[in-house]
Amino acid sequence: MVKPIVSIIMGSDSDLPIMEEAAKILDSFEIPFALNIFSAHRSPEKLETHLQKMLTQGIQVIICGAGAAAHLAGAVASRVQIPVIGVPLAGSPFNGLDALLATVQMPGGIPVATVGVGKSGAVNAALLAIQILALGNPLYAEKLAHHRTQQKDKIDLKNESLRVKYSALFKNICFSD
Amino acid sequence: MVKPIVSIIMGSDSDLPIMEEAAKILDSFEIPFALNIFSAHRSPEKLETHLQKMLTQGIQVIICGAGAAAHLAGAVASRVQIPVIGVPLAGSPFNGLDALLATVQMPGGIPVATVGVGKSGAVNAALLAIQILALGNPLYAEKLAHHRTQQKDKIDLKNESLRVKYSALFKNICFSD
Amino acid sequence: MVKPIVSIIMGSDSDLPIMEEAAKILDSFEIPFALNIFSAHRSPEKLETHLQKMLTQGIQVIICGAGAAAHLAGAVASRVQIPVIGVPLAGSPFNGLDALLATVQMPGGIPVATVGVGKSGAVNAALLAIQILALGNPLYAEKLAHHRTQQKDKIDLKNESLRVKYSALFKNICFSD
Amino acid sequence: MVKPIVSIIMGSDSDLPIMEEAAKILDSFEIPFALNIFSAHRSPEKLETHLQKMLTQGIQVIICGAGAAAHLAGAVASRVQIPVIGVPLAGSPFNGLDALLATVQMPGGIPVATVGVGKSGAVNAALLAIQILALGNPLYAEKLAHHRTQQKDKIDLKNESLRVKYSALFKNICFSD
Amino acid sequence: MVKPIVSIIMGSDSDLPIMEEAAKILDSFEIPFALNIFSAHRSPEKLETHLQKMLTQGIQVIICGAGAAAHLAGAVASRVQIPVIGVPLAGSPFNGLDALLATVQMPGGIPVATVGVGKSGAVNAALLAIQILALGNPLYAEKLAHHRTQQKDKIDLKNESLRVKYSALFKNICFSD
Amino acid sequence: MVKPIVSIIMGSDSDLPIMEEAAKILDSFEIPFALNIFSAHRSPEKLETHLQKMLTQGIQVIICGAGAAAHLAGAVASRVQIPVIGVPLAGSPFNGLDALLATVQMPGGIPVATVGVGKSGAVNAALLAIQILALGNPLYAEKLAHHRTQQKDKIDLKNESLRVKYSALFKNICFSD
Amino acid sequence: MVKPIVSIIMGSDSDLPIMEEAAKILDSFEIPFALNIFSAHRSPEKLETHLQKMLTQGIQVIICGAGAAAHLAGAVASRVQIPVIGVPLAGSPFNGLDALLATVQMPGGIPVATVGVGKSGAVNAALLAIQILALGNPLYAEKLAHHRTQQKDKIDLKNESLRVKYSALFKNICFSD
Amino acid sequence: MVKPIVSIIMGSDSDLPIMEEAAKILDSFEIPFALNIFSAHRSPEKLETHLQKMLTQGIQVIICGAGAAAHLAGAVASRVQIPVIGVPLAGSPFNGLDALLATVQMPGGIPVATVGVGKSGAVNAALLAIQILALGNPLYAEKLAHHRTQQKDKIDLKNESLRVKYSALFKNICFSD
Repeated sequence: MVKPIVSIIMGSDSDLPIMEEAAKILDSFEIPFALNIFSAHRSPEKLETHLQKMLTQGIQVIICGAGAAAHLAGAVASRVQIPVIGVPLAGSPFNGLDALLATVQMPGGIPVATVGVGKSGAVNAALLAIQILALGNPLYAEKLAHHRTQQKDKIDLKNESLRVKYSALFKNICFSD
Repeated sequence: MVKPIVSIIMGSDSDLPIMEEAAKILDSFEIPFALNIFSAHRSPEKLETHLQKMLTQGIQVIICGAGAAAHLAGAVASRVQIPVIGVPLAGSPFNGLDALLATVQMPGGIPVATVGVGKSGAVNAALLAIQILALGNPLYAEKLAHHRTQQKDKIDLKNESLRVKYSALFKNICFSD
Repeated sequence: MVKPIVSIIMGSDSDLPIMEEAAKILDSFEIPFALNIFSAHRSPEKLETHLQKMLTQGIQVIICGAGAAAHLAGAVASRVQIPVIGVPLAGSPFNGLDALLATVQMPGGIPVATVGVGKSGAVNAALLAIQILALGNPLYAEKLAHHRTQQKDKIDLKNESLRVKYSALFKNICFSD
Repeated sequence: MVKPIVSIIMGSDSDLPIMEEAAKILDSFEIPFALNIFSAHRSPEKLETHLQKMLTQGIQVIICGAGAAAHLAGAVASRVQIPVIGVPLAGSPFNGLDALLATVQMPGGIPVATVGVGKSGAVNAALLAIQILALGNPLYAEKLAHHRTQQKDKIDLKNESLRVKYSALFKNICFSD
Repeated sequence: MVKPIVSIIMGSDSDLPIMEEAAKILDSFEIPFALNIFSAHRSPEKLETHLQKMLTQGIQVIICGAGAAAHLAGAVASRVQIPVIGVPLAGSPFNGLDALLATVQMPGGIPVATVGVGKSGAVNAALLAIQILALGNPLYAEKLAHHRTQQKDKIDLKNESLRVKYSALFKNICFSD
Repeated sequence: MVKPIVSIIMGSDSDLPIMEEAAKILDSFEIPFALNIFSAHRSPEKLETHLQKMLTQGIQVIICGAGAAAHLAGAVASRVQIPVIGVPLAGSPFNGLDALLATVQMPGGIPVATVGVGKSGAVNAALLAIQILALGNPLYAEKLAHHRTQQKDKIDLKNESLRVKYSALFKNICFSD
Repeated sequence: MVKPIVSIIMGSDSDLPIMEEAAKILDSFEIPFALNIFSAHRSPEKLETHLQKMLTQGIQVIICGAGAAAHLAGAVASRVQIPVIGVPLAGSPFNGLDALLATVQMPGGIPVATVGVGKSGAVNAALLAIQILALGNPLYAEKLAHHRTQQKDKIDLKNESLRVKYSALFKNICFSD
Repeated sequence: MVKPIVSIIMGSDSDLPIMEEAAKILDSFEIPFALNIFSAHRSPEKLETHLQKMLTQGIQVIICGAGAAAHLAGAVASRVQIPVIGVPLAGSPFNGLDALLATVQMPGGIPVATVGVGKSGAVNAALLAIQILALGNPLYAEKLAHHRTQQKDKIDLKNESLRVKYSALFKNICFSD
């Protein structure tokens, strides 16, 4: 049976639409991962048990998504010494500023690798996990390089569609590029 | 006739959808409570009269919900010496930052026990009131313990539904947990 | 041997100059209290052990002071069901906004009674603890009433000193009050 | 005996260095004023008594200076229907943002005329009071006009001192003005 | 022909839905008022001309509503010495924080009486104008007193409707009040 | 073939609805411009190549629109020494505050001429570019003057429509203007 | 007599220590400039007169430095159609956030080219002005290129001094660069 | 000759007092590192050259410290695919909020692992780098475990010194712990 090497944990099922983006990236890179809901506040013992099971199975990176007074990543980081990536979520009336500060402003000694608020953050959490794994796995490094190339190629397509859309609309637009 | 032991006061009827959450919790714990609308600004005398009546009836905790320049909890706290819990509400263009600061930044001498902005805050205001009452009433302590267990049990259900939802969707997801 | 009924915990010894204010209030009200440093992040197991010892000794309220991504109060609140009071501290470059949001924006189910940032907050944390204890102890209620009267009497003195200071300085000042 | 027509109230004696600026302006315009310390929270009854005395004496404008969860101006505005001017003060770790929002974000029905945070705000509170009084007193209007002229004249002096200071320092500076 | 005694100016026609609230209050108090759109930036000369006309007609208070880098109230205040009331509007992505700071943080010498962001602010701008006018007109003072009484009476109705709505919904609600 | 003298670059195709406003202004002034999508992060080499091509063609001003950690304008400004105008976009949960600070807070040595967040910012970016070009081209100066006059004339129309809309609605409105 | 081609205006003499940085840059580039103090609020007529004089003398760019509700750049921009650069200053308790928003959030139609808060902003305002002038003056373009080269050369010196400072201090530092 | 496996880059020599903390941690873990100053804006080509040299030497993690519109980490992340850690610095008037947002809010595709603002952030950047390296090097994992144990042991010492300091000062303090 395949064992996960990345664990995605989120604080609530309302975080799924965002955190799914991280899962999609890991899945497309064919990296085995676990996906769970554990609250640092409502179920600290269950979170603890989960972390021990994950460490036993050889997990290498943990991604935590949480909103508001987002303690999840910090609580996990205080219990493991593998890299923990925090994704602040924007569910509260403060649009994620609370989650960002509660995730990133960790005391010296217990780092959380924080990414941006929202979907881009979840995507980047997965890519950061893969960058970390790629240091020890050239296959992942190759896939990352391929992923970057794809991103760049999309830009040419977008500029082409600009040309199509605007060449009639604007009289003074130039397409020397 | 039953007398209330918790009084919920809000500044405006537009606060009801949020403050109802506090009422629901108290009701489910079978704690008699009063529910009223009094503005610290528009009706200070009526608020004063209400507070005297409540104190005479033996009220033990007061929960105040207000938005914008949210003075309600502070105005109440300056007139009673039982615990006052403030719920900042997010109705204004500042998304509750004004209400939070106006509720929590009280001068030394007159505390307001402030909870979070929005529905979670209203829920927590009721639970905090019950925690306070439970110090003198073991029945409430028991109910609180039961409520926490229920919260934890829900997490197992949520993880189970994740398994159902994602095991087909993602090829590299692991359910070792 | 006297057992503590309030436990003050802070995240770092740099928090002492602020959190001492809470200790002074409790001491002046003759309320036995414990005073400790435990980090939610650097020593979660020691914090856990301390909480169990405190609960065994019959502690009734816990006051937690922390700065930055201030998880201490939330971490404690997730492990006990007695009231937990959070004091956000202003040590970081964000002047305590991070600590305030990380303390107050708790998820529904796990309340933290948050007070203001800084010295006034620490004073109010102690007074709020005493207000809670006073519900079951008329002696504390009496002392609280006395404390409030003292606060009010100071105001007369301050106005008197205004009169002394300004009656010569300003020609158009009136002292009809 | 002269009766005050403007009442300056502040929440704490630590507000004096700022609120003195308002007193200086009123004094220089020869407008009789009262100057007092009353906390909306620590001494609501004394504040109430003061307001009644002031109203009896014919006070026309009230200036309130307060910091943090600055409820003073709002508490006064809820009890009188003459104009109330609020000066938010910057004493807290939030540099007056809390005081500004708590002063200005009043509910519909109870206005507070809010000025800026700090010394400029205190100066402007006094000038605004005088502008209001000047509507019914041409002498004050005249003095205001004179005060504005003085402000403008100072600008010529400042530009002159720039010329003195910089004509040697910079080779490419021009003084065509 | 009746001459206006209050002038309402706004920076853009998109501000009308908010600034109408000020007009409604003035209209219901039977106070003659002008209502105009002038931008401090796009039409400074037209604004200047309007102000001179208004002053000639005996205007006594000016209410200015503007959003974003809201200079309108300040630009007006720098050109008249009657009271100028600023209403910050929330149209920009910053939800009115920009408009609030640009309106309230005036330099010493040129006050703007700032009210809250949004509809409550527009209502309060009109009421503040009436409070100012009422100092010289007892009829307005009477109307203001009547308006406040109406506000208070509405609160009794709201509490009555709470009773109707919740007495069946909650088993533990008390209506001793 | 006409060569562009202004280059508009944006970081993503989701920025088009805002950045189109800049294109419309340039088009209406008959200023040849290029319009492209290049990410400072995803395609730094393509951006570099584009800049070299643009400089060779004689481009004089570059307008960059980007959101979130908006590095585009800064990255361009570090590679050219013609004026670079930055338009912060509001797409992230922080409503453009992140984009504004990331665009405007450039280190000494590498200026970015920053305009406001959103559509007004895009319009102003184009107008600023034209103001810069107009220093060397009297035709553009003339067109700018005409554009300003049109803006002013619209204000008269708006005031006229106010008169139509409100003269029946409000009894106490005056149209002396 | 030499006529200025850049005009630096600031709102107060307290802004001089920052705005001097802009003057130093212009002076070192041998660009004739004027330096004046005019407040948009305290002396709008004098500001108007100055602007007319400057325009008559052929000024091409205006740099405005102001703090708090920083209207100066906007007020100037509404009266001229040459490029106006705004430098927000950090003097108020809000550390320049008020000045930044009041400067940059201009309505569509009246752009202000805003640079960062503080000394870097003043330096960049001057460099931006020179970039604008360099479009019509190859000498300035050459000087700008030289200035950039100097900035880059300083970096080599700084890295060299790092080597000197740290090679003894840290055992594991590498200087392969 | 030893080759670096971590590269620390900062934007300015004024960042040294903070970034030194990261160097100290790496040095104490005996991890070879490079330490350099390169500005993303002032010297993009030199930065590019440095990155190529580092990659050739087998660097595995890059730590970037920058303030204000802190583009350094993002600019590096766009050019390498190894993990990049960003340390936002608090030098600007916005106390690092600008640096935090400019560092963390990266677009999807180009992650930056962001740590907190200030010294704790620099310490955590180094520890995070070591956590990443420890995945492939058990010696580092051992050293990390030892470092955590040391952190925990310090807490016992701190509590002991509390006992010494306060046992005489407070009469009601309890040391049951």
